[in-house]
Amino acid sequence: MENGAGAGAAAPAEAAAAWNFEPNVTLLGLTALSVRGVLGRVMAGMVVEDCGAGGRPAVPMGHGDPSAFPCFRTAEEAVDAVAAALRSGKHNSYAPCVGLKPTRRSIARYLSRDLPYELSADDVYLTSGCSQAIEIICSVLARPGANILCPRPCYLFHEARARFNGMEVKYFDLLPERGWEADLDEVQAIADKNTVAMLIINPGNPCGNVYTYEHLAKVAETAKKLGIFLIADEVYAHLTFGQNKFVPMGVFGSVAPVLTLGSISKRWVVPGWRLGWIVTSDPNGVFQRTKVVESIKCYLDISCDPVTFIQGAIPQLIENTKEEFFENTVDVLRQTADICWEKLKGISCITCPSKPEGSMFVMVKLDLSCLQGIKDDMDFCCKLANEELVVILPGCAVGYKNWLRITFALEPSSLEDGLDRLKSFCLRHSKPKVGAA
Amino acid sequence: MENGAGAGAAAPAEAAAAWNFEPNVTLLGLTALSVRGVLGRVMAGMVVEDCGAGGRPAVPMGHGDPSAFPCFRTAEEAVDAVAAALRSGKHNSYAPCVGLKPTRRSIARYLSRDLPYELSADDVYLTSGCSQAIEIICSVLARPGANILCPRPCYLFHEARARFNGMEVKYFDLLPERGWEADLDEVQAIADKNTVAMLIINPGNPCGNVYTYEHLAKVAETAKKLGIFLIADEVYAHLTFGQNKFVPMGVFGSVAPVLTLGSISKRWVVPGWRLGWIVTSDPNGVFQRTKVVESIKCYLDISCDPVTFIQGAIPQLIENTKEEFFENTVDVLRQTADICWEKLKGISCITCPSKPEGSMFVMVKLDLSCLQGIKDDMDFCCKLANEELVVILPGCAVGYKNWLRITFALEPSSLEDGLDRLKSFCLRHSKPKVGAA
Repeated sequence: MENGAGAGAAAPAEAAAAWNFEPNVTLLGLTALSVRGVLGRVMAGMVVEDCGAGGRPAVPMGHGDPSAFPCFRTAEEAVDAVAAALRSGKHNSYAPCVGLKPTRRSIARYLSRDLPYELSADDVYLTSGCSQAIEIICSVLARPGANILCPRPCYLFHEARARFNGMEVKYFDLLPERGWEADLDEVQAIADKNTVAMLIINPGNPCGNVYTYEHLAKVAETAKKLGIFLIADEVYAHLTFGQNKFVPMGVFGSVAPVLTLGSISKRWVVPGWRLGWIVTSDPNGVFQRTKVVESIKCYLDISCDPVTFIQGAIPQLIENTKEEFFENTVDVLRQTADICWEKLKGISCITCPSKPEGSMFVMVKLDLSCLQGIKDDMDFCCKLANEELVVILPGCAVGYKNWLRITFALEPSSLEDGLDRLKSFCLRHSKPKVGAA
Repeated sequence: MENGAGAGAAAPAEAAAAWNFEPNVTLLGLTALSVRGVLGRVMAGMVVEDCGAGGRPAVPMGHGDPSAFPCFRTAEEAVDAVAAALRSGKHNSYAPCVGLKPTRRSIARYLSRDLPYELSADDVYLTSGCSQAIEIICSVLARPGANILCPRPCYLFHEARARFNGMEVKYFDLLPERGWEADLDEVQAIADKNTVAMLIINPGNPCGNVYTYEHLAKVAETAKKLGIFLIADEVYAHLTFGQNKFVPMGVFGSVAPVLTLGSISKRWVVPGWRLGWIVTSDPNGVFQRTKVVESIKCYLDISCDPVTFIQGAIPQLIENTKEEFFENTVDVLRQTADICWEKLKGISCITCPSKPEGSMFVMVKLDLSCLQGIKDDMDFCCKLANEELVVILPGCAVGYKNWLRITFALEPSSLEDGLDRLKSFCLRHSKPKVGAA
């Protein structure tokens, strides 16, 4: 309020003392699990310089959102499709809770290209971005005592939504020395009779890895053995630029039922358009039989929907976007991943276990013993932001203390600038070498 | 799945029997509280006729969504604003969880026109339509044992979200004989130490009433006396066409703190654009002190956001839309409310306690004793849909059994057609008069 005094029907300000409210403590704690919550803390002390006056620009290496950079500008055909749907005036209404049928059909076709069976429109549920897809899955699977298995490190939004709904999260390790493969022995050791599902994020966030067909087959067999569902977060689908091509988890849908989560946010570089999906990749109809499908529909009945005219644009958006656009994005990501890998080699307090092959991230280990005056990953990132205007996500935000998640999806010149500043920062805070003056 | 056989890595279909899952029973029950869930049941047996072949069109009098009718087409300036924001390429990114600052500022200014104090940008939180605003409020206020007070009849989405979050809902009556005013004696009787808030929907959904300044002042005093928050669902703000002008509950924000919920969905007739808000109308800063503000921000951190380019368009959309557009919408609503009122007088088994003065709805009482072969309101609406292709919401969907919620926001000719068919239906199902052959 800018002007509390004299406001409204007269009432003394001290009357406000009458209201008492006990906030939900669980909810207040969830900010620590949110990338933007943590980045907010990292950037809290950052004073942005006036670039016009010779100041340095801030370098955003924290988020998976390169849409502001010219080299990551979305496809013109995508913009045209949305503009046409908006101008048509046919899509101003509420949509059905599961989404518009032609849109569901076109996404089913789009995803079926990479599957050994055909999805139908009825397998697809439209969501307000992949984050709402996660919200829906967690809301549907939660019941007292239930737990889900998540990888560590992990995109913690899953944990936040699970915990908000009273579901427990158990972690299994990803193995950096094995290209961040899931430790499936650990999965079997921690699963119990209350385990409902196991999460796989591929291409990896935060690790930048891409799983092989063989590893995914083993994941599916493990889920089958345990009788648990698979949740496949594939929001970075097709953003791969190394040896392993993207294989959707749904390929193994007949081994174990898969809830595939995706969106146009990353491949079309439009995270602000909020259009995602949940797909039941489940030829055996397990989700139907166990009422997961009915539960999803019930939750969608009481949830907000993606914007109708964006839904209406999807068939044209998918059909019209040229292969060239996707190839260009992947080329830029390959180039920036290379830059990142090479530059990081030259920073002694940082170790990168493997070159990223997918998504927009790499996980690197911070060697605090080489640094002075730096307490932990959070402290490192806050000081880096303050001193160098470079924003990097501390590992604590992905459940991996004293590591860093670095986004390389930037304009190449900005990325080089950011990594150079990171190096300067590390040098400046290095412990003097033994024997030095 | 269209082709389950031979799908994916080979696995016998019978393996599916291994998966067991206990669905959340509370969730499965919430569909009965959802307008679209209930309308889905009403329309389940409806066979749409081929209008080109001389069949009758369906008449949608169930939803509050007239955007498909030419006379309710949204303002051209609104479409232009969104198209420009989309084309600019500046709004493809994620937005801050609370929303873009200029958008929050413009909504604060827009709402302050009707308040005795100035809202600031920081009082405004952008949401994915008013339904997400309700979701957020319920998620923030819920804690074990807590309850909120809701009017009866009510837009039950509030109850659905409250119950999903484990919060109890207690009902106080709206009084049809007093223009659907809240029974404030009952409010005081049912409130207890676990009551956190009271909901007011104005202009009324489902009742079509508009509260006077005097009644709202009494509501605020009651909330103050009880030490509870006010939730003001004002999604139909300014859609008034009778004696009472719209007065925002926030006018009394210094008497009792108000969480105002709104959106562009109804006034701009674009429910599919999913852009709404929560506003803390609270000059005394109670929400800050009691950590409601912090809780809202935490929930927003783990929620999906409204589309960024639509956020980006809001300042222009508000500034450029001409008064003439709003006046025209209200004129059409006044005209259709008149038609509805007059036509309903001629249907003997239906009683309308008062002429609607706001929103898009009227609540009418069904006299089942005049009808034969009709069990209740749900049965009435299902048979009406099957026989006459007229869709009306049964009262059970707004917590008022054997009443009907009729939407009059239609093209006038469609409305007349729909009401004539309703009359035919009622005549056809009337009990023969005593003394008739």
